[in-house]
Amino acid sequence: MCAQLVAIDIVHELTTLLSSERVSVTTADRSLHAVDQSAHTPHMPDIVLWPETTAEVSNILKLANQQRLPVTAWGAGTSIEGNPIPVRGGLLLNMQRMSQILAVHENDFQVTVQPGLYYKDMNRMLAQYGLFFPPDPGANASIGGMLANNAAGIRTVKYGATRENVLALEVVLANGQIIRTGSRSVKQSSGYDLTHLIVGSEGTLGIITEATLKLYPIPAFFSAATAVFPTVQEAAQVVYEIIGSGLEPNALELLDETAVAIINTDPSINLVPGPNLFMEFSSASENSLGETMAQVQAICEESDCLNFGAGIGQDARKKLWEARHRLFEIHLHHFPGEDFLLADVSVPISQYPTLAKATAQHIADLGLKGSIISHAGDGNLHTAVFFPHSDTRSRDCANQLNKRLVELALALGGTSTGEHGVGIGKAKYMAQEHGPALEVMRQIKRALDPNGILNPGKIFPE
Amino acid sequence: MCAQLVAIDIVHELTTLLSSERVSVTTADRSLHAVDQSAHTPHMPDIVLWPETTAEVSNILKLANQQRLPVTAWGAGTSIEGNPIPVRGGLLLNMQRMSQILAVHENDFQVTVQPGLYYKDMNRMLAQYGLFFPPDPGANASIGGMLANNAAGIRTVKYGATRENVLALEVVLANGQIIRTGSRSVKQSSGYDLTHLIVGSEGTLGIITEATLKLYPIPAFFSAATAVFPTVQEAAQVVYEIIGSGLEPNALELLDETAVAIINTDPSINLVPGPNLFMEFSSASENSLGETMAQVQAICEESDCLNFGAGIGQDARKKLWEARHRLFEIHLHHFPGEDFLLADVSVPISQYPTLAKATAQHIADLGLKGSIISHAGDGNLHTAVFFPHSDTRSRDCANQLNKRLVELALALGGTSTGEHGVGIGKAKYMAQEHGPALEVMRQIKRALDPNGILNPGKIFPE
Repeated sequence: MCAQLVAIDIVHELTTLLSSERVSVTTADRSLHAVDQSAHTPHMPDIVLWPETTAEVSNILKLANQQRLPVTAWGAGTSIEGNPIPVRGGLLLNMQRMSQILAVHENDFQVTVQPGLYYKDMNRMLAQYGLFFPPDPGANASIGGMLANNAAGIRTVKYGATRENVLALEVVLANGQIIRTGSRSVKQSSGYDLTHLIVGSEGTLGIITEATLKLYPIPAFFSAATAVFPTVQEAAQVVYEIIGSGLEPNALELLDETAVAIINTDPSINLVPGPNLFMEFSSASENSLGETMAQVQAICEESDCLNFGAGIGQDARKKLWEARHRLFEIHLHHFPGEDFLLADVSVPISQYPTLAKATAQHIADLGLKGSIISHAGDGNLHTAVFFPHSDTRSRDCANQLNKRLVELALALGGTSTGEHGVGIGKAKYMAQEHGPALEVMRQIKRALDPNGILNPGKIFPE
Repeated sequence: MCAQLVAIDIVHELTTLLSSERVSVTTADRSLHAVDQSAHTPHMPDIVLWPETTAEVSNILKLANQQRLPVTAWGAGTSIEGNPIPVRGGLLLNMQRMSQILAVHENDFQVTVQPGLYYKDMNRMLAQYGLFFPPDPGANASIGGMLANNAAGIRTVKYGATRENVLALEVVLANGQIIRTGSRSVKQSSGYDLTHLIVGSEGTLGIITEATLKLYPIPAFFSAATAVFPTVQEAAQVVYEIIGSGLEPNALELLDETAVAIINTDPSINLVPGPNLFMEFSSASENSLGETMAQVQAICEESDCLNFGAGIGQDARKKLWEARHRLFEIHLHHFPGEDFLLADVSVPISQYPTLAKATAQHIADLGLKGSIISHAGDGNLHTAVFFPHSDTRSRDCANQLNKRLVELALALGGTSTGEHGVGIGKAKYMAQEHGPALEVMRQIKRALDPNGILNPGKIFPE
């Protein structure tokens, strides 16, 4: 689409659907929606829209479908695989004006929200009910974006990813039709599971305009712990000993020695050098939490743990996760102005030591600068690799690392993307990962969006 | 399809695909596959097949698709909504010869199995690894049937239904194409979630030939408890107090006083009369389990519990669930030779007291004989209503009860079926429950099975 040629008519028509201040063709607004937090190539949309109601989203999609205009939804822009970059231009729907909490179903441990709400804001509000939504991707993502990408994060090991914590959706389809999927019942066996089909479809099957999410009581007692091991492999070995013991950690994160060295450059952080395991446990009873922590410490010490530090209570917990969540930011400061590539593969946890060892070897072999940061309890491994923009060789090596990790993950029974989604960067691996099932995905895409207007250029290789 | 006219050619062709002893047109074999455990009208398939490999399933489907023959898969025949009744005749695939455990991924808490395996047999074998698959529908269902219907049962409140506990599938599509969905990574964000689309699709989108399931460590310590309350409503009130306290029961079942009176007619069972709450808790530590049980007892006693009985250990637990699992069988003995209708609606738990009260009233108003049996922790309510085969008035009233319960469940934000699936009996409610989303389900059905050969007559109203 060429903005200059079609924009005038379309913009006029859009301003009849939305008030004119919610339709923008300024370069400033368009460039604000050209790239997420990834290092993928930016691309501006032609028109930015801020819908306020489901009916408006429906009307926009009817028009777009008629005119064959690409439509891409935008939440907080915190994704890291280029998922909402409008690579074909067209209309960008910024969902931030649809950010209401529509209902707190306190006794059902559920909340119904609009997609533009940021999850940290939601959890702050829900705390007054003693409830929280566990998926925690780190960045203050929007609920709509978390649903679209099936975001996960540090608490998936206990509570599951976003997919496992959604009960019902309102979705606007490519033709403007509004549908409701699922129900507020936690048990559902009524026809095809459209809810979980839409979750993770990255805005390519429909635009989510409402979601009912599962919540959990905030546990009464928390304990956070760090354990340091001689090697990443020994740390990884402890991971499934802890899970196998039935101790049910809330989080089980692994940082390699490089990641720990980089995070320690922040004056407020002082971790024991070496591969660190970050852990969180919780309980309704303080005694039982104490028992759990004693078991955890025993497991770590039997496995050549060099240092074990535990702290019960909110402060220890807060400090630990602040450090974890600032990891990416500290990396960005450590490599100022550099480009980066974040890998995101995931394997069965028994294969994690193999993956981690090979990853460290590949980083060294390729002469790259970067760390391993891992949601080890899920077998989900990230690398953060940095290089100057002009350094083509390192960029090629980073892409090579990504390719090697994907191929290794697939060979180990895993997936090319655990939580960042396919977006732009992983589309090229879809045929390899899914084989003939990719054609089934295409059939579903064609059935629901025959004109291909929804977030084109994503998920499917071209 | 008229068996007499087409069977000779087709049977001949099928015997070239399978050895001839695995192709049957005898009335004995056909009538063994004419009805599940429901009271729906039986219908015989034309030909019964026992495939042994995925390739055989694929070849059968290629032929069936070419010849437009209906194909229905059959697991253990324990479903109760007519889900595998071959209402259009055609080919019936009995999956019992595909019942291997293909791999125990012990360190990943996963198992890969064929669909004909019965889950109790699987769990018996997995016990040697200290692992189990939690969904427990009571009857010894096949894994394929549990996946197809998204079976749930008593442990869903803690572990989720079958859907939540499957990672990857091998599926044969209507055209014979074999696909693999998902991966063995617990985190997956790689394209459309075909795994969860196939689960619960009741054999209408493809035939499952392999599944990788999530397992859990068998907890070290169990405690079972029963609590008796003056009314169903008071018992239901306790349910979300227990869940809200973060105590995480494994199971939380509610039986009304009629169900308890009927189950007490069995000489080996001696429950305190009145509405009973059956509960199970577990822990890795005996002390912490003791604390939990003290908290549970306190909650029950604050809520006018008439009697509280708890027993720690496997024996108490076994006794409780034997009674619960024999409930249906004892009902059948209590109403010998009678027909029955099992309702299966599910609502948000806050709405369960309303649903339970109204259900009791409807049963009385309609002059029906029957009990309320409920997975209360999930808001999932069953009624078991019995009537003589010739009693048309009671049959009409039973259907009326079913209709009223579905309408009430939908009005309360719930679903027409929590765990039995749509099958035959719930198809008429699909438009009401799903509105325009039902057309999306039809679009997916048409895309994946354009000739409509897979389990026709199910899910979609006609």
